[in-house]
Amino acid sequence: MILSFSTCVEVEAHLRSGSRTIVIPIGSTEQHGPTGLLGTDWMCPEIIAARAETQSNQVLIGPTFNVGMAQHHLAFPGTISLRPSTMMLVLKDWISSFCAQGFQTIYFLNGHGGNIPTIEAAFSEFYAEASYEKRRSSLILILRNWWQLAGVEELARRQFPHGHGSHAEPSEISVTQAAYPASIKTAHCHPPIAPSGPVRDALDFKARHPDGRMGSDPLQADPRHGEDLIALAAQGLLAELAALEAGHDQLG
Amino acid sequence: MILSFSTCVEVEAHLRSGSRTIVIPIGSTEQHGPTGLLGTDWMCPEIIAARAETQSNQVLIGPTFNVGMAQHHLAFPGTISLRPSTMMLVLKDWISSFCAQGFQTIYFLNGHGGNIPTIEAAFSEFYAEASYEKRRSSLILILRNWWQLAGVEELARRQFPHGHGSHAEPSEISVTQAAYPASIKTAHCHPPIAPSGPVRDALDFKARHPDGRMGSDPLQADPRHGEDLIALAAQGLLAELAALEAGHDQLG
Amino acid sequence: MILSFSTCVEVEAHLRSGSRTIVIPIGSTEQHGPTGLLGTDWMCPEIIAARAETQSNQVLIGPTFNVGMAQHHLAFPGTISLRPSTMMLVLKDWISSFCAQGFQTIYFLNGHGGNIPTIEAAFSEFYAEASYEKRRSSLILILRNWWQLAGVEELARRQFPHGHGSHAEPSEISVTQAAYPASIKTAHCHPPIAPSGPVRDALDFKARHPDGRMGSDPLQADPRHGEDLIALAAQGLLAELAALEAGHDQLG
Amino acid sequence: MILSFSTCVEVEAHLRSGSRTIVIPIGSTEQHGPTGLLGTDWMCPEIIAARAETQSNQVLIGPTFNVGMAQHHLAFPGTISLRPSTMMLVLKDWISSFCAQGFQTIYFLNGHGGNIPTIEAAFSEFYAEASYEKRRSSLILILRNWWQLAGVEELARRQFPHGHGSHAEPSEISVTQAAYPASIKTAHCHPPIAPSGPVRDALDFKARHPDGRMGSDPLQADPRHGEDLIALAAQGLLAELAALEAGHDQLG
Amino acid sequence: MILSFSTCVEVEAHLRSGSRTIVIPIGSTEQHGPTGLLGTDWMCPEIIAARAETQSNQVLIGPTFNVGMAQHHLAFPGTISLRPSTMMLVLKDWISSFCAQGFQTIYFLNGHGGNIPTIEAAFSEFYAEASYEKRRSSLILILRNWWQLAGVEELARRQFPHGHGSHAEPSEISVTQAAYPASIKTAHCHPPIAPSGPVRDALDFKARHPDGRMGSDPLQADPRHGEDLIALAAQGLLAELAALEAGHDQLG
Amino acid sequence: MILSFSTCVEVEAHLRSGSRTIVIPIGSTEQHGPTGLLGTDWMCPEIIAARAETQSNQVLIGPTFNVGMAQHHLAFPGTISLRPSTMMLVLKDWISSFCAQGFQTIYFLNGHGGNIPTIEAAFSEFYAEASYEKRRSSLILILRNWWQLAGVEELARRQFPHGHGSHAEPSEISVTQAAYPASIKTAHCHPPIAPSGPVRDALDFKARHPDGRMGSDPLQADPRHGEDLIALAAQGLLAELAALEAGHDQLG
Repeated sequence: MILSFSTCVEVEAHLRSGSRTIVIPIGSTEQHGPTGLLGTDWMCPEIIAARAETQSNQVLIGPTFNVGMAQHHLAFPGTISLRPSTMMLVLKDWISSFCAQGFQTIYFLNGHGGNIPTIEAAFSEFYAEASYEKRRSSLILILRNWWQLAGVEELARRQFPHGHGSHAEPSEISVTQAAYPASIKTAHCHPPIAPSGPVRDALDFKARHPDGRMGSDPLQADPRHGEDLIALAAQGLLAELAALEAGHDQLG
Repeated sequence: MILSFSTCVEVEAHLRSGSRTIVIPIGSTEQHGPTGLLGTDWMCPEIIAARAETQSNQVLIGPTFNVGMAQHHLAFPGTISLRPSTMMLVLKDWISSFCAQGFQTIYFLNGHGGNIPTIEAAFSEFYAEASYEKRRSSLILILRNWWQLAGVEELARRQFPHGHGSHAEPSEISVTQAAYPASIKTAHCHPPIAPSGPVRDALDFKARHPDGRMGSDPLQADPRHGEDLIALAAQGLLAELAALEAGHDQLG
Repeated sequence: MILSFSTCVEVEAHLRSGSRTIVIPIGSTEQHGPTGLLGTDWMCPEIIAARAETQSNQVLIGPTFNVGMAQHHLAFPGTISLRPSTMMLVLKDWISSFCAQGFQTIYFLNGHGGNIPTIEAAFSEFYAEASYEKRRSSLILILRNWWQLAGVEELARRQFPHGHGSHAEPSEISVTQAAYPASIKTAHCHPPIAPSGPVRDALDFKARHPDGRMGSDPLQADPRHGEDLIALAAQGLLAELAALEAGHDQLG
Repeated sequence: MILSFSTCVEVEAHLRSGSRTIVIPIGSTEQHGPTGLLGTDWMCPEIIAARAETQSNQVLIGPTFNVGMAQHHLAFPGTISLRPSTMMLVLKDWISSFCAQGFQTIYFLNGHGGNIPTIEAAFSEFYAEASYEKRRSSLILILRNWWQLAGVEELARRQFPHGHGSHAEPSEISVTQAAYPASIKTAHCHPPIAPSGPVRDALDFKARHPDGRMGSDPLQADPRHGEDLIALAAQGLLAELAALEAGHDQLG
Repeated sequence: MILSFSTCVEVEAHLRSGSRTIVIPIGSTEQHGPTGLLGTDWMCPEIIAARAETQSNQVLIGPTFNVGMAQHHLAFPGTISLRPSTMMLVLKDWISSFCAQGFQTIYFLNGHGGNIPTIEAAFSEFYAEASYEKRRSSLILILRNWWQLAGVEELARRQFPHGHGSHAEPSEISVTQAAYPASIKTAHCHPPIAPSGPVRDALDFKARHPDGRMGSDPLQADPRHGEDLIALAAQGLLAELAALEAGHDQLG
Repeated sequence: MILSFSTCVEVEAHLRSGSRTIVIPIGSTEQHGPTGLLGTDWMCPEIIAARAETQSNQVLIGPTFNVGMAQHHLAFPGTISLRPSTMMLVLKDWISSFCAQGFQTIYFLNGHGGNIPTIEAAFSEFYAEASYEKRRSSLILILRNWWQLAGVEELARRQFPHGHGSHAEPSEISVTQAAYPASIKTAHCHPPIAPSGPVRDALDFKARHPDGRMGSDPLQADPRHGEDLIALAAQGLLAELAALEAGHDQLG
């Protein structure tokens, strides 16, 4: 069930049927090197979540959180970034909205490494209100990066043993190529595998990584690899959601 | 040109070619009565902008701002709302991102009446920084509701002379029906035309409008009317964008 | 009853007598062209509210909110502006103060168009707290521009059929001339009717409107017209307050 | 020169004539016991500043800041309070407005002891921006309580040797009685001199001070004493302003 | 009992034994002239609290709040300052933490005059939440400067009749010399007694006070005087804490 | 060189000598199970930094940041926590203070896992200001957990092959035992190795971990192991600082 394409009556019935979990694809709109789409990081979790949804009518997918924390990419046109403090407030408002409606678990399926500290800080900020007031929080908040789903990172490393890197990676670009074959881009990249380095401000980043890649060779991307990644990740997502609905309480 | 499906290299080339305007579809994820999709308000501007983009390679469409100010709808499951203060910070961050990259005009194509005061306040907040510092702002910020585009409101009133109302309107639902025929919903509504009333908090709203409609009869929605609205709105959008690129400076 | 000139004992007795509404005149301290007083926008609602108060001992008038959102006028000396975000916090604190004391309706009688989005956003921010927590708000918040009171705008258009404009208007200046005849100012204005234009930052505004007027010819101002406007607006205000006290719940 | 009753043209001419100081009367709207007006704390500095203005055409008086930090009085109806954090933002915006217009000294003439820490914190907040950026601040910010003006506190102690107290004091009530003789109130107070105590939250305050007075016997108030206080304070204010205009830089 | 050197089990037992007060030494890290340690202002209250703790097993000392509001000293390397608004949020979080754990009185023993307005504003901010909600606050918040403890200021004035001043004072430097004799510094100072002046931004401060001293001759510092101050202050602190535990409710 | 025990003259000389890095020990005040000190997390980095300082006169150690993000421990008395949003503002102010004084690298030596997301988000928040403004940041910000220093984690795993766990670990407790042998605590723990689990709000945490430990057996702590950890960590810290001073720019 895709929330945006449903009515409030349908969502209410879904909740009444006992499903209390919502999946929020969350990513970023940011440069992904010479061939990666600016939407790569929000597309990947959206694609995987949508695939999972076709396989289970228990799954509810919320709207995609499509602009995240990408300050270090701002020197590349098309990048949009929230400040961490802003993103924390947005997450609080999204979470508070669901809180009032009977949801129990908000599962953020993340596609952007740069979002992780901010999402975790936002969770702590939300839980802190309960902690200061000595009450139990009514919600379980989960952050899962799609590459952490069962077996996915291993598959990616087998697919791309060299030059996977840490930004504009062939795995994520393969996922978007599988889903949007009309938007496959080509380019030349020098050197084939980009350098690595620390992440500071945007001009420092661009000086270290002139074409935007970090440690990666995205030209290895292949839509068939993308399809394999999507299928495996969707399966892993369904398994986690089933465990949550069954009351498993060790995820965090 | 759709930003999310482009690379940063393509956006940079677009800017270098002289096009300095970006269109941001902005809406809300909120209840739209028994038959309206929760995504109606962000879908309408996204659909219209996408139509315009197919007709001009000068047009750049940014990612959709899909959760807005909808606090009064929170009693209906599936609604997500930002606080006005949060939404103002998000708009500031989006605008600041473009500001550093050579854009000149950020054109928000809005699909949700409830967003208007917050967007206008966010614009004033952005301009105020320049005003306190006695410098010219480098950006032109424009808010246009899609129904304000040339001729659109008049067409909607001709299509739906009775029961157009002010929420879950047959016009906006027709637009989503035209774009997503697989998601057309049916229901019975009593009374045919819903009551009107003031907007306060969510429980007050639900008490006044038990099925979510305000003054409207959305069952009149028709995808053919939607198609006509999309075509006319896309044409109006292109005309405004052309005027802006030509240096017309009276829009605000 | 004027709150500032009363004791807390008197206000308490007033509340105990069943009157639960307070009127807050709200405006701005900002340039009003060559002849308009900097206080015009807070004076108008204060004058009208004070007139109404002389006609009914049921009416309670709070202190005047005399500095509002006027960032676009900052290039003219004497203008003072709050950021929208600041003004929202101030409104929240005023409203919260009354909330704890038994008031039911806070009626903002506004004299400055530039305040409208910020006041509306502040109302949504206040209501949102209740909406997220699934509780009814205990307060009714009303924004009424004095020129929207029954018949007032029509009278002003009859008085000033040409050159009424949208800033430094002859109607508002007439109101202050009627109330403060010792402060009537004279000047020459060229052109007689000032140009219109969009509102952005302060330097842009001053470049478009070098003497501060927008679309208006304030030299038409006349204290006798002002007196007629005050009398009619006070009558309209009393009618609305009576409706509210009688339980009418459609105002918003 | 009273800013609100002047035009921007007049204020600009005033600044051009070399006068760079503005006086802001600042107070509170809060209970002042059984006989004190709710507006006492903003009226006193406004009255004194207005008197000074009648004696010198060099003096510019800004709009009155009429709602301050009065959280401890909120249990008494009619009290309005800003949070300290809100008031600091408001002060920042007022100060920033003047900063862009050529003012050099913002002189806050204060009428409410409870405002002092917040105003001082706001000054530090403003100066801190300059300090972090290693630049000189362009403004001099001054806080002066009206009872600190030369000789005033001594006069009040002579007028009211017993029961002056620290809230709802006979001196401040005398000042308002002198200025607004039509609003003199009478009541019985038991005990004649109210108890003192610490200031915490509003219910604690009301439990300690059931009629709102702190250590005072306001029934001693006398409009003739008020007139003497006004005259002396206005003289002290003029002396400080003259020293500032003459370049004296030891006030703070 | 020193909280940081205790376990949570020990603190819980302490609370259960009936002791409900915690002492927080609070100061600043800021320049103290040519011979004063950067930590002087947090060391003094920490030293005094530690001394008191050795004399009573009833006393609980929390961690030292070692960076405060010192914006005016930022031009001297090694100074660290919080903005007042930041410090207010930190104080709120510390206080809220204790609030949930059964503490009743949070006693801030302060060593820095520049902290006073911010701490007082933070207390009002905390109490205001209760006041707006018409409930009693569960905590008593106390601010005591160590030099205000019984007899201490008098002793300092006897020890240093000339050149005590208001920053980098011989008394506070004596206290650190007594506690940390290995860190006694020497220097020449001209003039022997530094000038006084207003406190504004950091560059203004440094221009008025080139070596950081304000009105003081810190070369008079003597560890034997410091020992006398510590002993007297510790005794005064124990007396106040005993009064609080005995239910004395006039401190504030 | 310990900043708090130095004068501003000494810090200025240190900077002028070419050393531009400052080490900030950062931790938390939070429960550490039945035997761990509440100050464990700020003591460990302070102890290691102090040891390093005794071995090199190039090293400058700032004041200890002793209260961090520990909301999940608030149900245990003595724990103090900042909200993530508060801690981000504090870090911004500390960093901004150093920024104005000629420092180049701020090296946070962290002792609390729960601080990591907030510190990383604070760094992004700081860098973002530069990124939005298209300028290079003047500072390098580094976060290093003390157990990440060369060889330290390996040593701890050799010392405690079973029951090291993730909170109230024998390694950190050993470090405090080595430094403060007078504060070694004893207790019985059941089960010997505590359970693991997700981190949510404070009451959830206490329900899962009734005595505060997570996956650890802190009774294995031994001051001799602590001494070995301190020596190795100090050596690793000195190596990293030397690399930074030598211009190595890959740390992040």
